[in-house]
Amino acid sequence: MLQMIRMLIALAAALIAAPTLAAPIQVASPGGVLTVSVDVNPDGRPGYSVSRLGRVVIAPSRLGFLFTDAPKLERNFTIGGESRRSADEPWEQPWGERRFVCNRYNELRIQLTEKVTPGRRLDVVFRVYDDGVGFRYEFPQQASLPQVNIAEEITEFAVADAATAWWIPAFQWNREEYLYNKTAITEVGIAQTPMTLRTANGLHIAFHEAALVDYSGMNLQNEGHGRFRAVLTPSSEGAKVKRAAPFATPWRTMQIADSAAGLVMNDLILNLNEPNRLGDVRWVKPFKYVGVWWEMHLDKSTWGPGPRHGANTANVRRHIDFAASNGFRGVLVEGWNEGWNDDWFASGKDFSFTKAYPDFDIEELARYARSKGVRLIGHHETAGNIAVYEPQLEAALDLYQRLGIDAVKTGYVADMGGVQARGADGRIHYEWHEGQVMARHHLKVVTEAAKRRIAVNAHEPIKDTGLRRTYPNWVAREGARGMEFNAWGQPPNPPEHEANLVFTRMLAGPMDFTPGVISLEGKGQKIQSTIAKQLALYVVLYSPIQMAADLPENYEANPKPFQFIKDVPADWSETRVLNGEVGDFVTIARKDRKSENWYLGAITDEQGRVLDVALSFLTPGRKYRAQIYRDGPAADYRTNGKDIVIEERVVTSADRLMLQLAPGGGQAIRFVASER
Amino acid sequence: MLQMIRMLIALAAALIAAPTLAAPIQVASPGGVLTVSVDVNPDGRPGYSVSRLGRVVIAPSRLGFLFTDAPKLERNFTIGGESRRSADEPWEQPWGERRFVCNRYNELRIQLTEKVTPGRRLDVVFRVYDDGVGFRYEFPQQASLPQVNIAEEITEFAVADAATAWWIPAFQWNREEYLYNKTAITEVGIAQTPMTLRTANGLHIAFHEAALVDYSGMNLQNEGHGRFRAVLTPSSEGAKVKRAAPFATPWRTMQIADSAAGLVMNDLILNLNEPNRLGDVRWVKPFKYVGVWWEMHLDKSTWGPGPRHGANTANVRRHIDFAASNGFRGVLVEGWNEGWNDDWFASGKDFSFTKAYPDFDIEELARYARSKGVRLIGHHETAGNIAVYEPQLEAALDLYQRLGIDAVKTGYVADMGGVQARGADGRIHYEWHEGQVMARHHLKVVTEAAKRRIAVNAHEPIKDTGLRRTYPNWVAREGARGMEFNAWGQPPNPPEHEANLVFTRMLAGPMDFTPGVISLEGKGQKIQSTIAKQLALYVVLYSPIQMAADLPENYEANPKPFQFIKDVPADWSETRVLNGEVGDFVTIARKDRKSENWYLGAITDEQGRVLDVALSFLTPGRKYRAQIYRDGPAADYRTNGKDIVIEERVVTSADRLMLQLAPGGGQAIRFVASER
Repeated sequence: MLQMIRMLIALAAALIAAPTLAAPIQVASPGGVLTVSVDVNPDGRPGYSVSRLGRVVIAPSRLGFLFTDAPKLERNFTIGGESRRSADEPWEQPWGERRFVCNRYNELRIQLTEKVTPGRRLDVVFRVYDDGVGFRYEFPQQASLPQVNIAEEITEFAVADAATAWWIPAFQWNREEYLYNKTAITEVGIAQTPMTLRTANGLHIAFHEAALVDYSGMNLQNEGHGRFRAVLTPSSEGAKVKRAAPFATPWRTMQIADSAAGLVMNDLILNLNEPNRLGDVRWVKPFKYVGVWWEMHLDKSTWGPGPRHGANTANVRRHIDFAASNGFRGVLVEGWNEGWNDDWFASGKDFSFTKAYPDFDIEELARYARSKGVRLIGHHETAGNIAVYEPQLEAALDLYQRLGIDAVKTGYVADMGGVQARGADGRIHYEWHEGQVMARHHLKVVTEAAKRRIAVNAHEPIKDTGLRRTYPNWVAREGARGMEFNAWGQPPNPPEHEANLVFTRMLAGPMDFTPGVISLEGKGQKIQSTIAKQLALYVVLYSPIQMAADLPENYEANPKPFQFIKDVPADWSETRVLNGEVGDFVTIARKDRKSENWYLGAITDEQGRVLDVALSFLTPGRKYRAQIYRDGPAADYRTNGKDIVIEERVVTSADRLMLQLAPGGGQAIRFVASER
Repeated sequence: MLQMIRMLIALAAALIAAPTLAAPIQVASPGGVLTVSVDVNPDGRPGYSVSRLGRVVIAPSRLGFLFTDAPKLERNFTIGGESRRSADEPWEQPWGERRFVCNRYNELRIQLTEKVTPGRRLDVVFRVYDDGVGFRYEFPQQASLPQVNIAEEITEFAVADAATAWWIPAFQWNREEYLYNKTAITEVGIAQTPMTLRTANGLHIAFHEAALVDYSGMNLQNEGHGRFRAVLTPSSEGAKVKRAAPFATPWRTMQIADSAAGLVMNDLILNLNEPNRLGDVRWVKPFKYVGVWWEMHLDKSTWGPGPRHGANTANVRRHIDFAASNGFRGVLVEGWNEGWNDDWFASGKDFSFTKAYPDFDIEELARYARSKGVRLIGHHETAGNIAVYEPQLEAALDLYQRLGIDAVKTGYVADMGGVQARGADGRIHYEWHEGQVMARHHLKVVTEAAKRRIAVNAHEPIKDTGLRRTYPNWVAREGARGMEFNAWGQPPNPPEHEANLVFTRMLAGPMDFTPGVISLEGKGQKIQSTIAKQLALYVVLYSPIQMAADLPENYEANPKPFQFIKDVPADWSETRVLNGEVGDFVTIARKDRKSENWYLGAITDEQGRVLDVALSFLTPGRKYRAQIYRDGPAADYRTNGKDIVIEERVVTSADRLMLQLAPGGGQAIRFVASER
């Protein structure tokens, strides 16, 4: 009887203790800056919110999935468990903007269990840093959901404050090459990521994703009132993502900083990727390169065969000589291989990735290049036809390996309504660049290339989500309007373009923008820049491979500014963002990985500016010769982009510089450390 | 030699005459109000624009398609031919807002031919009315595109002027039941149609579609700068639309009027549908009905079986008696059939559409109803599980036919992440309400019902696109927030809701809103209305079937206002919109189809208003007894919705009335024509 009473008392206590609604589960960042709260509402719908220093940044936002062949998974949940973990795991980049990366976070794993049949499970894992949050879903192995066919991910991001957004549209023309919109967040349509916000309080937030592996890319749909929802990129075959459990989604990321500069200094995307899987990658070389490329965009030569074929042996030999004379490791040659028919961009069906045109002696040129300490850079333009490319991939990479070609630029100009891939039915399907099919494809190319110690630089790529950490041979990609739009783009890139890129596209990772057209001449149109700005881009727009994009003869005609391009490295041990506002201006200083020298790049939009910069990043007590490439007094992108002053002075870390930038201008400085 | 010279001259003349770009092809509306221009740009991209009285309304906007398995079809076109047609084809509605419908337009057909391989053809057909434009694509039969698998339709609508938009989001929760947003068009996310705009110049434009048959519903994605693009509703099986050529898409429609009222008076959607295919449809009866429905929403009884089961024989008999006593033809009974498990909304897997619960004697009740001149209204709640419903459909309709039940309310509450349909693989797929699968399903139900002379009233339906013209037994549907949100909705419908509906949802067609809850009591919450507004809704919100939604006992307790609901017809010979502004207020007068009597309904939002109305719609020289149901002096939806004044006066067409509407109020008037 006593036993019975005890049991009843215990039962009553349990009933009283069972809350109608559990208090939110919280996890703060290591320094207490950000706090994530997770809870499940009375309908069993899970949600999260983010606050920063006690103020809500992301209001309660929903989590969950729709499936094509199973009931949705977004409510009737109970929290089946939680676990926490803290990590402080600094790591070294084999190459990058900085050598050492801090990686300090608190992790919260929420195990959600469906209260109703079929009782499915879903984990949500949050990693909270002082400067950002990432979370992902993990589908455990379970009998009730062995195959996960996702119709839509209904992840929300509810921005708590009014904000301005910088964004490019999703699903417009199956590309990423747009001018950035600057609008109120309420005026965003459907945006690609990264999308960058500045709230009315001056907080900067960038939404993106990390580790996009075997999944479909996420876009952000404006749902009104500052609320955004994930829209996954479609597939031609139904479900936007098809995966067997167990698996994890990419990380959904929010980089959060008080300043625009703080966004750029943020390593969240890299940190959320898996460590290097390739082992010793000293064979991945950061480098600068020249190439047979800009001349085609100027219509001075052609990709395809004929009397003006750019990829002819003599022309390439000339480029190799130029590269060797000026310290460039790489020579890119586009249009070398068979298949560049007049409508190549419209099908890609004729591309061979192993057969050179007769006027391009690939064996001899590769040998000649190596003899001069130069490497050819391979080129695989697919026209987005991966059904033609993939069967040739291994042979194509074998060829490059044999020839000592250790970097390949891939291209996916897909002009026919999508990337062409072979579907499950064996027929050609048209897919989006950012869909699961292409996520798989790109990683296949990268891993096949890695087996052969070849680096990959993808153009018209899937977006960068930091996979260079895991696959360090994925050195760069395009994924935004690059220099070629200055040749023929309508309109050409406006002066604000690069100041937009730094705080949007570049948050994703390195971009092969191909800067340095110091002639400032497009195809019948002027480049909206000064020479000094072209030089500054080598510092401002990070890439471990940087092209000197102009024609060799233009560099030879302008040896003084060209000197900076010859001097500037492509690999850094440290990076400092000294100032900046999204779309307006930015100044970045980086330290050469192989010396004590520092480099500074500053760029502005159409506004001329004077930027007061402290040189405190330099080593105290040391003297530096500052080799300054600045806009001249008459410089103006509209009237005279070529006015440049090149001068030298001695500075120390105690000095300040007033950087005077012309409208559309910039400034580049090389700080040569004195011997101690 | 002379011959040669003549040839050369002719050749030169031809070369000179060949324009680099063809002049736009234009077609004007019969009265010259609207003009559509179509052209093909230098890339062969077709586009259209619309101007009104010489001013551009829709700026150049693109046309075309992406496919899942074929190159896109949106450029490299040449105009292979054009043809024109004019029509003036007035027609009679078997039931409707007005008996006779004018249908006068000019048609332009543009035959587009791909200049490059595979040389596909695509027609675009424009029908231009003085108050709107419709256009559709037609895929001719052709060897190069026998099967059309559409990934996306890239139709654009570029609004030329700044505008305010009233809209509800697409793809939010797989439903149409939202409060309307009123924003700048630049702040629209992705919208369902109809979407209604008022430009800065006061022009009103509504975008929608007509004749959505075997295709996927169109939504409108904000692309920035006033430009919208079609986004078709997805399918679980890849292509959003799969059709064999030849076929035509639904019509893309723009209703264009100087005033909000002009939008409502617009018959574009109906006119673009095919004429009646059912022959003599006098068996389709407009009617009013009561039902076992509101009591469940108030939680006074249950859909499912048990001690509080609403659909029990005694309760239904009471409703039949009430209907017979008060002149209602129909008695809806929900929850009569097996399958209303506690989680019915979560699967629908147990629904039988032929087996009644034991406490509901369907045979006897159907007989009893008929004996009193009343008909039961059938009810098929599917929970969106058409895989369970379709195999039972014919037997279910056979049962109703045998019992003399000639109308069925269908329901598609799909709470599990989509409508459940059997896919090509034989497995269950989750589909959107507005996708091609559901377009097919609804028409299957409607045509099967028609064979048995049964009318269909679909809830949680696919959107209305005017198919009632072709299938007049498709009498009404839901497709917006209805009265039930006043029972339990958070928030309940605000006072502006119905004034939004008139100019948005109602442009699509009749809505079974289920008005008339004159008790103004929801489940523990007040309805944001006055009694007079509840009465006015019978005139304002058109439907050929109108419910008296309140509990019988509430009508019995309020016989005076109930008299209007008893008197008001559900079928009209004429309709006049006397005034109105989107989301603010509206006054509509309609003439009874069976008598010389007119009815007027006026409603307002949260603002009290005085509306000056001319009675010029009445027949001149005739006297009418105006039976006026107006807000009393103390009426206010916040504090006293029940203050109503009912009075009678004699009026003629020369009179004016000052309609005084309380905040959240309305006014209903019956004009009883005197004998001549």
